[in-house]
Amino acid sequence: MRKNHLIDLCDLTREQWEEIVDLAVQISQNPSAYAEAGKGKILATLFYEPSTRTKMSFQTAMFRLGGNVIGFDNPQTSSVSKGESLADTLKIVSGYVDVIAMRHSIEGAVLAAAQAADCPVINAGDGGHLHPTQTLTDLVTLRIELGDLNHRVIGICGDLKNGRTVHSLINTLCHYQDIEFVLISTPELLLPARFKEVIHRSGCRYREVLSIEEAIAELDVLYMTRIQKERFTSLELYNQQKNVYVLDSAKLCLAKPELKILHPLPRVDEIEPSVDTDPRALYFKQARYGVFARMALILTLLSSQNKEAVLHGNTAGDTRCPNPNCITNLEEGTPLSVIREGDQSYCEYCDSPLKD
Amino acid sequence: MRKNHLIDLCDLTREQWEEIVDLAVQISQNPSAYAEAGKGKILATLFYEPSTRTKMSFQTAMFRLGGNVIGFDNPQTSSVSKGESLADTLKIVSGYVDVIAMRHSIEGAVLAAAQAADCPVINAGDGGHLHPTQTLTDLVTLRIELGDLNHRVIGICGDLKNGRTVHSLINTLCHYQDIEFVLISTPELLLPARFKEVIHRSGCRYREVLSIEEAIAELDVLYMTRIQKERFTSLELYNQQKNVYVLDSAKLCLAKPELKILHPLPRVDEIEPSVDTDPRALYFKQARYGVFARMALILTLLSSQNKEAVLHGNTAGDTRCPNPNCITNLEEGTPLSVIREGDQSYCEYCDSPLKD
Amino acid sequence: MRKNHLIDLCDLTREQWEEIVDLAVQISQNPSAYAEAGKGKILATLFYEPSTRTKMSFQTAMFRLGGNVIGFDNPQTSSVSKGESLADTLKIVSGYVDVIAMRHSIEGAVLAAAQAADCPVINAGDGGHLHPTQTLTDLVTLRIELGDLNHRVIGICGDLKNGRTVHSLINTLCHYQDIEFVLISTPELLLPARFKEVIHRSGCRYREVLSIEEAIAELDVLYMTRIQKERFTSLELYNQQKNVYVLDSAKLCLAKPELKILHPLPRVDEIEPSVDTDPRALYFKQARYGVFARMALILTLLSSQNKEAVLHGNTAGDTRCPNPNCITNLEEGTPLSVIREGDQSYCEYCDSPLKD
Repeated sequence: MRKNHLIDLCDLTREQWEEIVDLAVQISQNPSAYAEAGKGKILATLFYEPSTRTKMSFQTAMFRLGGNVIGFDNPQTSSVSKGESLADTLKIVSGYVDVIAMRHSIEGAVLAAAQAADCPVINAGDGGHLHPTQTLTDLVTLRIELGDLNHRVIGICGDLKNGRTVHSLINTLCHYQDIEFVLISTPELLLPARFKEVIHRSGCRYREVLSIEEAIAELDVLYMTRIQKERFTSLELYNQQKNVYVLDSAKLCLAKPELKILHPLPRVDEIEPSVDTDPRALYFKQARYGVFARMALILTLLSSQNKEAVLHGNTAGDTRCPNPNCITNLEEGTPLSVIREGDQSYCEYCDSPLKD
Repeated sequence: MRKNHLIDLCDLTREQWEEIVDLAVQISQNPSAYAEAGKGKILATLFYEPSTRTKMSFQTAMFRLGGNVIGFDNPQTSSVSKGESLADTLKIVSGYVDVIAMRHSIEGAVLAAAQAADCPVINAGDGGHLHPTQTLTDLVTLRIELGDLNHRVIGICGDLKNGRTVHSLINTLCHYQDIEFVLISTPELLLPARFKEVIHRSGCRYREVLSIEEAIAELDVLYMTRIQKERFTSLELYNQQKNVYVLDSAKLCLAKPELKILHPLPRVDEIEPSVDTDPRALYFKQARYGVFARMALILTLLSSQNKEAVLHGNTAGDTRCPNPNCITNLEEGTPLSVIREGDQSYCEYCDSPLKD
Repeated sequence: MRKNHLIDLCDLTREQWEEIVDLAVQISQNPSAYAEAGKGKILATLFYEPSTRTKMSFQTAMFRLGGNVIGFDNPQTSSVSKGESLADTLKIVSGYVDVIAMRHSIEGAVLAAAQAADCPVINAGDGGHLHPTQTLTDLVTLRIELGDLNHRVIGICGDLKNGRTVHSLINTLCHYQDIEFVLISTPELLLPARFKEVIHRSGCRYREVLSIEEAIAELDVLYMTRIQKERFTSLELYNQQKNVYVLDSAKLCLAKPELKILHPLPRVDEIEPSVDTDPRALYFKQARYGVFARMALILTLLSSQNKEAVLHGNTAGDTRCPNPNCITNLEEGTPLSVIREGDQSYCEYCDSPLKD
């Protein structure tokens, strides 16, 4: 567990992430009580890959706490990456600031960076791998809008194969009682077996359906996602999949009046604009709740005293991960770290399964 | 009238813009009294087209009020425009912040954006169309430096055909009594007939001259403008016009000692650097007054409770404007809105005249 | 002497820079006492050449003083350089803010800019010419970590021919008593004669050696530097020199236990990462001390009342400097200004020697 950083929501116990969610709910009820909670503190947003929305959400969160923000978001036109290792940059910047939010296109880069940092580091997205503050945002939204999360029917629609926010949401929701997941996807984009296994082990249930229409009537929550072009190996495959699921007013007629519609945004075409004015459409509120989630996370990490080890796997000499997009292949001094779970081994940086 | 936003200065009554100008004058006299007036508030500067000077002026204004600023200014290298509608971006950002200053290369884009926003929106320039905070800056400068604006002889020099700041300044100055406009331009860059009509209807006067020399002796104000390359259809035409008017020390010898020289900046060659040290040269002061103008505007909008409709024209199905650079042709869900004035119809977004 | 600006550390007397260093040491001992010392003030970071680390250090410094920051760091994609002179930009921005930190690729550009500015200007690097806040950082580091600077043996290793931080550090350290400089470089990258002359005149001593090994045992300080590609005329020459000096744990075994290892960062390969955990490695601390140095400098300039002339040389008509990378050749209205020192004349902007 890496309490001093937030790299992966799985590093936290349920008690730990619920504490953050509870604090976010409190902040949402009385934001002015927290307007100086981060006074004199500085957040660095180190965005090695641009993500304007996520960056603006972090900046807003820090300003709403009375703090300040430095950072960069375009290392190609800046001078930051010129021959300097991630570790050196993190060493320097963590000497300037109190907390860092980092985004990188390489899987595991934020975990590698956290090892060098002298201050808490938040994963604001590492390639297609993890994006834990999105999941915190989703949880805060559900807690504010739904209250009790137990005994709910939760539909998740779109690219269940590649969607990192989907996988992380399922992982965390499985901690609640008697959740029924309704997995809405094409046969090509089914939820991978290991997440079905997680659901199964938790005592929750799932079923797979091919259309929104056949499921929407029973749902308490409908979590829509975008089909992301960059996750597909061919444009042809992307084009086949991208417009299969579109939520419109007609389909919404079949839904419960208290349905909660979420979406991590940005959307492309998967929710028609006419749905926006429906009171069940919560995705813009969700973006706003994301600021409260990040405020709560920053506050929690600023007060964290814990200095536990960042890595927990076994490092074996100078071996590298078989995943070419894993940070172990790109940053010197970052050899493979192996996590063993039962019969299977994984790379601690990018979670790729390893052969023995 | 769109009191909740500032898209076009024409949307405000004279009383409304004078209130903002009065407040700016007050702020200029005692800026420290306003140093915390915007404490805890956040401004977003959404610059879809870069404009470093305007952005820095808005940022300074917000900081001088004790507030904070988020934003972007380079959507090409950022991720903001990837497949997301203007409306969605504005919905999200207006959930984060308290006021938005937006600049866009497309005419009418800021008006379209304001419809989606849940907070006040300021037009920081929409293509060659409107730039109302420049006009507020000009008015604040004239009020501080000239006091009473009635009965003045005001020379305006340069591209009177295409200059948006010129048109807007004439529109507002016509509300004062007995203004005489001296329009200094080449025959190719004359003031368009509809603005002459505005002057005429207001009871003010104008005359057209071809040179600075023949007019400068009588002027109370000389408003110089830059010939903007991007407004010309050919480089040849631009090159013919660009160096026709140059204010230098020799011409200034003919002017009154209390003449006020303004320029929206940046200048290219139309005012010689030797003029800068003349006490009549006010253009750098004018840039500073622009900060006070924007402070007053931000404060006024932050305290605005009004939620009037943003659009006032008639929307006819899914028709688009004949101007290809009008936002109705680029943003889905933004059909033409028609404003009728006497015999003539206009597009509400870009003010292009429409055929019946 | 240009007390109102910091263009070149040589413009300050020893008393003046020691006052800044003393203040930085005080700030480092009790930073919270200065947390509101710059409240309500604004710093502009005008980076005509990107330098993310230096910019973040300045931003952090200003935030740690309770102030705010505006600026730009990518004029190519922004609109700032479009046809506007440096002087005009500085005039406008200095009307907005309280202090400016400027970086430019052209030598002398910051001195030229300071002439136009109505507020203090800090040189954050002008091409390969000067970088005085790096030298302040080095001095603050030595003062905090070493205490008394007199009677020290100071090794300086790397490109002593082209390194601007090295030259500036030698210039200032020569003001202390009985310093022995150990100059570690290849024959191609020896310290230029004029800096040897400075050492000689000051009563300090130097000797030149070819390897770290032969000198490290006696050193109190080892100042490592990066071989900068951009300072070499051919890639071949760069490749010959770049890996000659590498500090590793083996060499460190020969050193005193109280050796202080400094480096201006970023490093490439000249210090092995294994050295980082050695308590003698101070370069990451040094980066942190750089924030205190800049806080002290900003505070000193904010309270400066002095309005002395910026230029001290003789301006001769419209002559330009023979150095093509000197600002006199690029900014209109900036003719050569000649400084006479004994038999030799120099360009005041770029310090190039001039022929009579």
